[in-house]
Amino acid sequence: MEVKLAFAGFGNVARAFARMLVERQNDLTRDYGFRFRATAISTNRHGSILSPEGIDLIEAVDRMERGESLTGLAGSESVADSFSLIEQCDAYILFETTPLNVENGEPAASYIRRALDRRIHVITANKGPVAFCYRELRRLARTRSASFRFEGTVMDGAPVFNMVESCLPGARVLGFEGILNSTTNIILTGMEEGRSFDECLMEAERAGIAEANADYDIDGWDAAMKAVALANVLMGTEINPREIKPQGIRAVTNDDIITAARRGRVIRLIARGQQVSDEVVISVAPEEVMKDSPFGAVRGSSNILKIKTDLMGEIAMLETDPGVRQTAYALVSDMLAVFARMREP
Amino acid sequence: MEVKLAFAGFGNVARAFARMLVERQNDLTRDYGFRFRATAISTNRHGSILSPEGIDLIEAVDRMERGESLTGLAGSESVADSFSLIEQCDAYILFETTPLNVENGEPAASYIRRALDRRIHVITANKGPVAFCYRELRRLARTRSASFRFEGTVMDGAPVFNMVESCLPGARVLGFEGILNSTTNIILTGMEEGRSFDECLMEAERAGIAEANADYDIDGWDAAMKAVALANVLMGTEINPREIKPQGIRAVTNDDIITAARRGRVIRLIARGQQVSDEVVISVAPEEVMKDSPFGAVRGSSNILKIKTDLMGEIAMLETDPGVRQTAYALVSDMLAVFARMREP
Repeated sequence: MEVKLAFAGFGNVARAFARMLVERQNDLTRDYGFRFRATAISTNRHGSILSPEGIDLIEAVDRMERGESLTGLAGSESVADSFSLIEQCDAYILFETTPLNVENGEPAASYIRRALDRRIHVITANKGPVAFCYRELRRLARTRSASFRFEGTVMDGAPVFNMVESCLPGARVLGFEGILNSTTNIILTGMEEGRSFDECLMEAERAGIAEANADYDIDGWDAAMKAVALANVLMGTEINPREIKPQGIRAVTNDDIITAARRGRVIRLIARGQQVSDEVVISVAPEEVMKDSPFGAVRGSSNILKIKTDLMGEIAMLETDPGVRQTAYALVSDMLAVFARMREP
Repeated sequence: MEVKLAFAGFGNVARAFARMLVERQNDLTRDYGFRFRATAISTNRHGSILSPEGIDLIEAVDRMERGESLTGLAGSESVADSFSLIEQCDAYILFETTPLNVENGEPAASYIRRALDRRIHVITANKGPVAFCYRELRRLARTRSASFRFEGTVMDGAPVFNMVESCLPGARVLGFEGILNSTTNIILTGMEEGRSFDECLMEAERAGIAEANADYDIDGWDAAMKAVALANVLMGTEINPREIKPQGIRAVTNDDIITAARRGRVIRLIARGQQVSDEVVISVAPEEVMKDSPFGAVRGSSNILKIKTDLMGEIAMLETDPGVRQTAYALVSDMLAVFARMREP
């Protein structure tokens, strides 16, 4: 069977995914019985194209990376914007990877809404829509018999949502805590080695790990969006992300880190979701933890998420030095989950 | 729908599972549409019973815990042994939780073989059969359209096998390393606090964590069986567990631990599966690791398993202070996976 794919956003993650897809095409056909054809790509600054005959993904990736426009790619026609693209693409799955907007999750949420409404399965790596309108989008997906998947929104391709969904049946999530933002962890652990805040931030930026707007990382917004997404999906809440007041790491000094070290401690930016009487309270703040604790052992771009459950006690997932390939893998695993669901009755 | 359950072995794990089942009966019926009836229990020293009308599980648990025989439980008839029980029980699922045999995995492997052959789904918490005859049992299960599940054999209910099976589609496991045996970790981390080997071993025995034969823990056999089970299932090997020469922790002294501590290190019993040219090599040995590394941070009965994959890089699963309830949960999650599979076409 041939599956048509469309892309809203074609940045680092989407391009790494496109490369992985081409690289594994034969395995996917052999193991899952699917071939794919990319029929649409929209970008902000490099044009948006449709091609019912199929886009050469490697050529599209190369053009973007040379800073060229996609417009004029062989066999393609230009299209005005992402909404027109979603209307016209006739795709089976839309990969939504446009940038994070911490104000309201737009326009990503509207792209997803439009696609689901047209019964297109949606896979996103954008935490905004999951933080701002998870319940609405899930409901819409159900009424349209479409899938809405978002494994890449928290801890890249580490199976956080999928693990709770498929491997902890019957268990209830009571709370979670995690180190979920790589940029701030690179800064905090870099400062432990005596480097300056700004020097470490530049390192994260050079590595392509920082958000396009690094204030989102430093002020705790990225971690807050992830925590709200986790609470919405794993604990059934419907929290307004605007009500969260994250405390970032802007005020953490090298002195704070030295003082903590004297007590055998280190500072980590910890995101929490806790059941407090009958509501779930989200917090994001720098905290001191023991240097030789599981959270203290998480350094550089690594992440950890600890989940507390009723039947299974506490388990944690640790992701070591993730790169863009891991987030790209999240899209692969979500895509294969869509295929698996398709085979169900 | 009503599901008939049979138990081969009714020790700590099976009894904790039986309690959880009774406690959650209403939730299971509501969320999964299943009611259950326990129709058979075999034990080594407390008799074996069949009861087509259904066994009162709480009464059976209480009898065992008072040291009484199951024989004579209301409505039940006595049966000679586990093989006769499997022949006669007419169950839908067999829960196999008899003790570990590191020589050949028997008689557990034969119980499982007999049950699968009769198209009874099998869920085991016994690593022996998975280490000694995984491939054969999987093949048999497939030809009989039965499920063979074993989540509880490694890291209790932490979803190790199920996570790789359902959440890492398309990715290949290239290797793993872990702290998989709680007793030796209690001993090694207890010795860091200046206590003696024997004192810590007694603590693990009192907590019901040590194997019935604690030499299996101390000499690395339990960890070796788990490593072989992981390699068989996750990496497709067919290793003879008898060929593994685990190095346990019997020779580790308080002096070794003090010497390591001077270098900021601690000793952990580490089990590994590594691809070396075209074979998978299993090793189990005490190793020095940094005190503030993820492995150094694993103390007491806690466990960790790090998996290296091609597409998803490295992820680790950490289980904090597991108890018998967590292993019991593994049986619950496997049971719900059997139910889920039943609903497929």
